[in-house]
Amino acid sequence: MQTRLTQAFGIRHPIVSAPMGLISGGRLAAAVSAAGGLGLVGAGYAGRTASEPDLNEELALVRGHTFGIGFITWALARDPGRLDELLVHRPACVFLSFGDARPFAARIAAAGARLICQVQCMRHVDEALDLGASVIVAQGAEAGGHGASRATLPFVPEVADHLAKRSPQTLLLAAGGIADGRGLAAALMLGADGVVVGTRFWASQEALTPEPMVARAIAAGGDDTVRIKSLDALRGVEWPEEFSFRVVRNGLTEAWAGREAEARAAFGSMREAYARARASHDLDIVATIAGEAIGLIHDRPSAGSIVESMVAQARQQLERAGAWLRQ
Amino acid sequence: MQTRLTQAFGIRHPIVSAPMGLISGGRLAAAVSAAGGLGLVGAGYAGRTASEPDLNEELALVRGHTFGIGFITWALARDPGRLDELLVHRPACVFLSFGDARPFAARIAAAGARLICQVQCMRHVDEALDLGASVIVAQGAEAGGHGASRATLPFVPEVADHLAKRSPQTLLLAAGGIADGRGLAAALMLGADGVVVGTRFWASQEALTPEPMVARAIAAGGDDTVRIKSLDALRGVEWPEEFSFRVVRNGLTEAWAGREAEARAAFGSMREAYARARASHDLDIVATIAGEAIGLIHDRPSAGSIVESMVAQARQQLERAGAWLRQ
Repeated sequence: MQTRLTQAFGIRHPIVSAPMGLISGGRLAAAVSAAGGLGLVGAGYAGRTASEPDLNEELALVRGHTFGIGFITWALARDPGRLDELLVHRPACVFLSFGDARPFAARIAAAGARLICQVQCMRHVDEALDLGASVIVAQGAEAGGHGASRATLPFVPEVADHLAKRSPQTLLLAAGGIADGRGLAAALMLGADGVVVGTRFWASQEALTPEPMVARAIAAGGDDTVRIKSLDALRGVEWPEEFSFRVVRNGLTEAWAGREAEARAAFGSMREAYARARASHDLDIVATIAGEAIGLIHDRPSAGSIVESMVAQARQQLERAGAWLRQ
Repeated sequence: MQTRLTQAFGIRHPIVSAPMGLISGGRLAAAVSAAGGLGLVGAGYAGRTASEPDLNEELALVRGHTFGIGFITWALARDPGRLDELLVHRPACVFLSFGDARPFAARIAAAGARLICQVQCMRHVDEALDLGASVIVAQGAEAGGHGASRATLPFVPEVADHLAKRSPQTLLLAAGGIADGRGLAAALMLGADGVVVGTRFWASQEALTPEPMVARAIAAGGDDTVRIKSLDALRGVEWPEEFSFRVVRNGLTEAWAGREAEARAAFGSMREAYARARASHDLDIVATIAGEAIGLIHDRPSAGSIVESMVAQARQQLERAGAWLRQ
């Protein structure tokens, strides 16, 4: 497939794997890029906590491919030197989401990497354009993990209209709810140049996702996820107020849904219990992170076969266009 | 354009106008049907309150067209004889949303009308199929007015997969977030046979929408709407727990967002103030109902020109398919 994204990055398909912290390591990014997409390594909370993989080791795995690195921007701001340490791996792009990207844009440009800014509302779009972002990712709230409140289907064309007026050369990707070729084809129709795919690659062979989580998520449908604010406060992670967390419902989400004020007051109270639950894969406490598109996911194939089947299905849908137009 | 929906209803375009209570009168439905879509008259709370239009008068305006009637199902259940009174107008279809459709399906079939069930989660799909619904409308939470929590983009293909297994002859429409030809083309890619369009027709010449509301909504962007639960309780309308209300943010939504328990305790406390605000168009109190797609809407054209421009833009997008597929 061919769009402005494939041309800009010299890739074969307009599919980018989301830089999911603790999940998107070098094997996943390498597999996505080898299949013709653009693989991103997730630097998560900047790779300084015990539960995170060694980012230098992960980035070594993707050497020789066109790849990128993604950061949680507010976490990178706590440890800004991390950016320079990882830029030595020469990523084609740096993907920033969730926070103020201003301190980082110039260094990313100086390293010869393109800046990709993921946005959750229209204000973020202007902030990203002010920084000279090459690519805007419009992320809908149906996405797994952190996000905000806009829905992908109306958000993407609204961003597209804004870019057409203010910065038509800036590329646009859709994120949130896209797990197959139907979602890819729909995103192109909405005005995107490609897609960022999280949950589908989260449940791939090469992802670092623990198998019990994948098993639980595959058994769930799209109705079984919930966007919740309380969990970050309880587990003591200081996410900015505007972002919440989409996970598969479990005992903890049922107990804490809508109790945000209480959770804030109890900040960090579950930190140790949560860490123990993560170690023991107690999925009634620890969050299984997945988006609404989990309802379209029923297996854990290789990342390469995911890229191939997304492209094949998108092609099939796009080839139907003529039949709908026939009078 | 041609899909299974246009064939089933003998219409020219796969565009259905949402049966918005107090908004979708006979003029709007007639204009949508005259332009080749399928116009629905909204029976709202069954047309028994002072603020609602006279439904027999509205239905007289659409005589001679292929049209439908839409009900808020739980409200119809309080006044079930209303269905038979309105079926004498011989609608091609009856659209039921928000509640248990079982008491009504047989009478709709006996009147020779097709049953369209709007659903907000996967459980609703099975309930609709059990009743023999001809058409399922998968409604995402980005829709204006009442709805639930799923997002259109991942929900539609999940419903499509379920229908393919259980009832492949049942038609599927997408609702929520669709205001232009890009949304229509995207919905077809997701596996829908057509779209239900609310907010775009809400801001049409023929809608019964008060002009101050349209002006306020047009000035808003998609970031300016919010899905809120509290308002129905405050204004004393007994909506089932699972449904919330998407409106343009105003003083009332800012004051009451997230205060659902308090609002329930104060049930009906704002009933009179709300009625006064509606009469005087005090839009800092009364809700301006609109979906996230309001960010794509900048004018109040005729419904016929909306249908035409949606089709023209969808055609333009679908004709681009070949370029994306070119290797």
